[in-house]
Amino acid sequence: MGDSLGKVFRITTWGESHGPSVGVVVEGCPAGVPLTEEDVQTELDRRRPGQSRITTQRKEGDRVRFLSGVFEGKTLGTALAMMVENTDQRSGDYDEMAEVFRPSHADYTYQAKYGHRDWRGGGRSSARETVGRVAGGALAKKLLSTYFGIETLAWVSQVHTLRTSIPPAKVTLEAVEANPVRCPDPVMAPQMLETIEQARKSGDSVGGVISAVVRGCPPGLGEPVFDKLTADLAKALMSIPATRGVEFGLGFQAAEMTGLDHNDPFVLKDGRVATASNRSGGIQGGISNGENILLRVAFKPTATLMVPQKTLNTKGEAVDMKGKGRHDPCVLPRAVPVVEAMIHLVLADHALRAALNRDPGGLAARLKG
Amino acid sequence: MGDSLGKVFRITTWGESHGPSVGVVVEGCPAGVPLTEEDVQTELDRRRPGQSRITTQRKEGDRVRFLSGVFEGKTLGTALAMMVENTDQRSGDYDEMAEVFRPSHADYTYQAKYGHRDWRGGGRSSARETVGRVAGGALAKKLLSTYFGIETLAWVSQVHTLRTSIPPAKVTLEAVEANPVRCPDPVMAPQMLETIEQARKSGDSVGGVISAVVRGCPPGLGEPVFDKLTADLAKALMSIPATRGVEFGLGFQAAEMTGLDHNDPFVLKDGRVATASNRSGGIQGGISNGENILLRVAFKPTATLMVPQKTLNTKGEAVDMKGKGRHDPCVLPRAVPVVEAMIHLVLADHALRAALNRDPGGLAARLKG
Amino acid sequence: MGDSLGKVFRITTWGESHGPSVGVVVEGCPAGVPLTEEDVQTELDRRRPGQSRITTQRKEGDRVRFLSGVFEGKTLGTALAMMVENTDQRSGDYDEMAEVFRPSHADYTYQAKYGHRDWRGGGRSSARETVGRVAGGALAKKLLSTYFGIETLAWVSQVHTLRTSIPPAKVTLEAVEANPVRCPDPVMAPQMLETIEQARKSGDSVGGVISAVVRGCPPGLGEPVFDKLTADLAKALMSIPATRGVEFGLGFQAAEMTGLDHNDPFVLKDGRVATASNRSGGIQGGISNGENILLRVAFKPTATLMVPQKTLNTKGEAVDMKGKGRHDPCVLPRAVPVVEAMIHLVLADHALRAALNRDPGGLAARLKG
Amino acid sequence: MGDSLGKVFRITTWGESHGPSVGVVVEGCPAGVPLTEEDVQTELDRRRPGQSRITTQRKEGDRVRFLSGVFEGKTLGTALAMMVENTDQRSGDYDEMAEVFRPSHADYTYQAKYGHRDWRGGGRSSARETVGRVAGGALAKKLLSTYFGIETLAWVSQVHTLRTSIPPAKVTLEAVEANPVRCPDPVMAPQMLETIEQARKSGDSVGGVISAVVRGCPPGLGEPVFDKLTADLAKALMSIPATRGVEFGLGFQAAEMTGLDHNDPFVLKDGRVATASNRSGGIQGGISNGENILLRVAFKPTATLMVPQKTLNTKGEAVDMKGKGRHDPCVLPRAVPVVEAMIHLVLADHALRAALNRDPGGLAARLKG
Repeated sequence: MGDSLGKVFRITTWGESHGPSVGVVVEGCPAGVPLTEEDVQTELDRRRPGQSRITTQRKEGDRVRFLSGVFEGKTLGTALAMMVENTDQRSGDYDEMAEVFRPSHADYTYQAKYGHRDWRGGGRSSARETVGRVAGGALAKKLLSTYFGIETLAWVSQVHTLRTSIPPAKVTLEAVEANPVRCPDPVMAPQMLETIEQARKSGDSVGGVISAVVRGCPPGLGEPVFDKLTADLAKALMSIPATRGVEFGLGFQAAEMTGLDHNDPFVLKDGRVATASNRSGGIQGGISNGENILLRVAFKPTATLMVPQKTLNTKGEAVDMKGKGRHDPCVLPRAVPVVEAMIHLVLADHALRAALNRDPGGLAARLKG
Repeated sequence: MGDSLGKVFRITTWGESHGPSVGVVVEGCPAGVPLTEEDVQTELDRRRPGQSRITTQRKEGDRVRFLSGVFEGKTLGTALAMMVENTDQRSGDYDEMAEVFRPSHADYTYQAKYGHRDWRGGGRSSARETVGRVAGGALAKKLLSTYFGIETLAWVSQVHTLRTSIPPAKVTLEAVEANPVRCPDPVMAPQMLETIEQARKSGDSVGGVISAVVRGCPPGLGEPVFDKLTADLAKALMSIPATRGVEFGLGFQAAEMTGLDHNDPFVLKDGRVATASNRSGGIQGGISNGENILLRVAFKPTATLMVPQKTLNTKGEAVDMKGKGRHDPCVLPRAVPVVEAMIHLVLADHALRAALNRDPGGLAARLKG
Repeated sequence: MGDSLGKVFRITTWGESHGPSVGVVVEGCPAGVPLTEEDVQTELDRRRPGQSRITTQRKEGDRVRFLSGVFEGKTLGTALAMMVENTDQRSGDYDEMAEVFRPSHADYTYQAKYGHRDWRGGGRSSARETVGRVAGGALAKKLLSTYFGIETLAWVSQVHTLRTSIPPAKVTLEAVEANPVRCPDPVMAPQMLETIEQARKSGDSVGGVISAVVRGCPPGLGEPVFDKLTADLAKALMSIPATRGVEFGLGFQAAEMTGLDHNDPFVLKDGRVATASNRSGGIQGGISNGENILLRVAFKPTATLMVPQKTLNTKGEAVDMKGKGRHDPCVLPRAVPVVEAMIHLVLADHALRAALNRDPGGLAARLKG
Repeated sequence: MGDSLGKVFRITTWGESHGPSVGVVVEGCPAGVPLTEEDVQTELDRRRPGQSRITTQRKEGDRVRFLSGVFEGKTLGTALAMMVENTDQRSGDYDEMAEVFRPSHADYTYQAKYGHRDWRGGGRSSARETVGRVAGGALAKKLLSTYFGIETLAWVSQVHTLRTSIPPAKVTLEAVEANPVRCPDPVMAPQMLETIEQARKSGDSVGGVISAVVRGCPPGLGEPVFDKLTADLAKALMSIPATRGVEFGLGFQAAEMTGLDHNDPFVLKDGRVATASNRSGGIQGGISNGENILLRVAFKPTATLMVPQKTLNTKGEAVDMKGKGRHDPCVLPRAVPVVEAMIHLVLADHALRAALNRDPGGLAARLKG
């Protein structure tokens, strides 16, 4: 019951790291949205490992294949399935995982929960599962950018203790993609890269923070009282492997403030209701207010290390284990397109739902078409 | 579509601040759970305002009434409805809200979304809506404590810039309830109280952080890949009014660490698999691992202030507005039982779901009964 | 998990026959729909027993009370709750039911399923539970008639072996409400009444069929491949107590036909695509085609009889039992507004969903508002 | 939003008739259920066309491929995906369908709903979509037969006006599979075959009825008040293409009876509560009572005919059209495994859900592992 996300625009993903394939079914996308495999491939390529020496060296071709739901280049309005075959599976690297619980991995909890697990490369708990999310997110992105004018941009804003101070309003896609760390700060990016390289050399790993901004989101997305936009974004983002926290607007910093310092005064801008400041991060009462949506996601350091760690095996015996094969000392650069995908998926769901909130006469008129 | 939460143990709440009543329907609770109105009233009384001078002075009787689902003191397994009448409605205090968008409130976003809103006291966006959550949460708590041995405890760990350093493992309910701030730290609590009083006197408000620990949670709660326990808790907590962020285990602090520092080694404790440290906060791969679950929630300062603020009215004219009537300069003490309720609701849902994960033969045997 | 129905326009009902109250929460209705308690009361009064000597004589005041979701006479777009108190509870009539399983009632299956049941008057399995459905259905009806031009009419077309041959196209609300049987046939209605009276006198009961027509439904309602309009209507109708079958268009009669006899040729009528005949009953491929929707629902005879029947008690001992108190020898006249309510609920859900199927640009424009 | 079915055991299907593939994702199956591709292939082969001259001659290899969710021959408890490639696509046969609305097909309603449709072979409305259902149903069948002792059997009980009078209790799988009509009656089957052949020769088609029995179902499946077992079965069955009606127990015949004739007395059989007769068809109050579940489904005659029919093209012009390519004059024999699959899917969902209804202490014990 946990492989699906969304109520109207809804995805269901499948796939284990070393199983036959990973994929996604998207339900609820309106008919007529133009979509090519290239639209999806572009996003998958951003997620793919092996793009540089700082990420895991697995060579994943990751060619997406449409299985259903697109005809003559446009969505049909019914289930849209996309798949990527798992081709580069060196599961021999993972044999030890059948017997040993890697510290801070999901090996033990999957075993405790299901009593039967695919230990090869983490199985369903592997970051490879996010391929389906990114594919589904590419369709959501297309829908949002083509019709709603909504654009999302994520970037690495912190690696270990290194932080960029570039304000979200100034971040561009070009600056993000200009370096392998996906940090738009030309000063900090090389230092972050160096930190990641040091972690690789020592067999260690580092965590960090991904920030994101959503531009052009109209007011009205988010549904009281449980499906607030903050709530649904938090869930979607916290479902990404290795996440440990999420915050909106000023986030935890808001906890240290007074109301006079934190409140955003309403003002008119270009004839529309706007806020003079944006400490709320574009969401008030759980509903978008038309300002930029601002959020941050904390990632813990990669659990797999290339140095020995103490742990237990499945018999309960204390053992030392050391990672083998590929090593990804910092997941953040590759997680950037995943963060964007999760935001796109939530916004697509809520953009469609928001169209139903009012003006029942206008809704009825749509059926006369 | 946003008034419900949960998949198996599921609540639907209703009610506006100054409407006839607030309430909740709970679906999916097994039959046979003992429940009295007193069980629920105890939790509602903790949430009720007017308990001390530091919270809003509205006198809410808030007597719960069972409408269905309980017979001879035990749940029936079908829809269980509970209601609290809204009796103390001084909506005259709120007349101005019909015409003015209060800064950082939900007035504007509700208007933009629905085109029609109950402006009295914030309507559905009011914290009064959480009455239904707390009532539903009381049933979840009863289920969890009676059968699963799961206990949740929340407390105020930060007000404005004041923080307690008491470790979660040492916090007790008695210490939390010992003072009106609900901070278990006898040194910091009076200072926090003073800060809140200062805010009241100046017509300002303060934010803060609520921390929580879940004790006795068995391994296996949380469902890959979207309904991770972190993800569903994050959603539930971020649906509480005024929340701005949530983190698990070390949270944003984990982002600054290396894998060697952050990983929790597995060890045997009392014959079961445990972790030597608990930096993961009891959840790995989105599934509980049997350790204490640790989390923190950031609250922004109350938006309503007793000093004039610049804003717009519904005609788009710049106006000054100042709050009237009751004033709650810090929502955190009253939010403690709400945080606990949301955690209980998510855990009840996942505890039931986890019972379905494996051992299909055992499931079949349950139907022979 | 079974107390809710619908995906976008969604109801959750609560209440047992002799518990404190019965009620409903409606989610997903757009804001701005005018609704008065009188709109709802009118439908409840049609369902109410005691309207004539042919139905059960329980005096249910059944006054609806709005609990939330309506402000200044219009829906708010958020949870709308309505309640009817259970006032006339002569549960003494039902004491025997605590110990005896009434034949063909739900007493035994509830006991087997839950191990704990409210035996007073059938508890949750009582037809009284349909009060919440009718209240929710009244809102759905208002939405459909006001904005979509959709009208539903149901009537008793068969009692025992007596059938009316009046074609659905000629049935009017006036003719249906002209007699207590709710059969629009002035010749058959008195005979049906006589049959029901005979059953009453002999302590027996009779079954029958309710037919319905939906007029003005636009093309496009119903979602492939599982939420077909036929499928969702079938589920909603088969959830009414005492139903045994449902059919659309020619139904089981279609099974005896050939394609040449059954197919409906497409023709132009008033410039729109129509069918020359309507053997499909207005639904093709699970989607409405713009013609009248035609359906029929079979009801079994009331299980409670005023003559002794052989059965078991809860100890497994063979006993004779005989109904006491009120007796409803034929549920069909009172079930007419329930059938209409279920149809309205399904159509409201699908009318809203259908607005999302295409024209994403038009959906986006709705958010600019 | 209509491509998924089920709440706990849940399937999502994808695929158009002439698109790249058809498939299914199953969520919510417990871990540890043994499943081989052969288990699934067996069911798919029963559904496959081209088995005899009485069904459509399309040669579908229909080899299932597992994409995820099975490891070392057992389910993992997470998303299980299965796919069949579409290999034999003679879409040239269907070119005319791009421009013409076939009478009583879904061509027009899909066009009206989505504004864009895959006209090749009916696209998503094709019976080929049921491949995913049958694959998912094979897993449900394995779960039910292995652990719950539940067995389902469906057969053709009527073709055109020809009916078998063999009672459900006497029907065996061997008898059903003994002839290409899948009617277990050795007298009627050849006559039905003859009727179908006549229809083929004349380019016409015939409808019929499929009956089914579920044996070994324990009491307690089905959830009040909307997810009654009758209701969920009705929905699932009415979602099969070409269905027009469904009935349980005596169905529409019950409408003609009195309570004295229809009620099933409770008796003890082998120490358990049973009914002396089974007019209720194994379901009372929407919940299984431990008796055989009995149901019937009406199918209309195939819409595609090999003789000219009057209709409209997409420009609204009157045209004559005649089917080309393959012709299936009676869908019922191939629909038998689809009916079984839908029943299996509903029962699997409800069997798991029923395990949560009571005994919360037992549920908690399951997590101790």
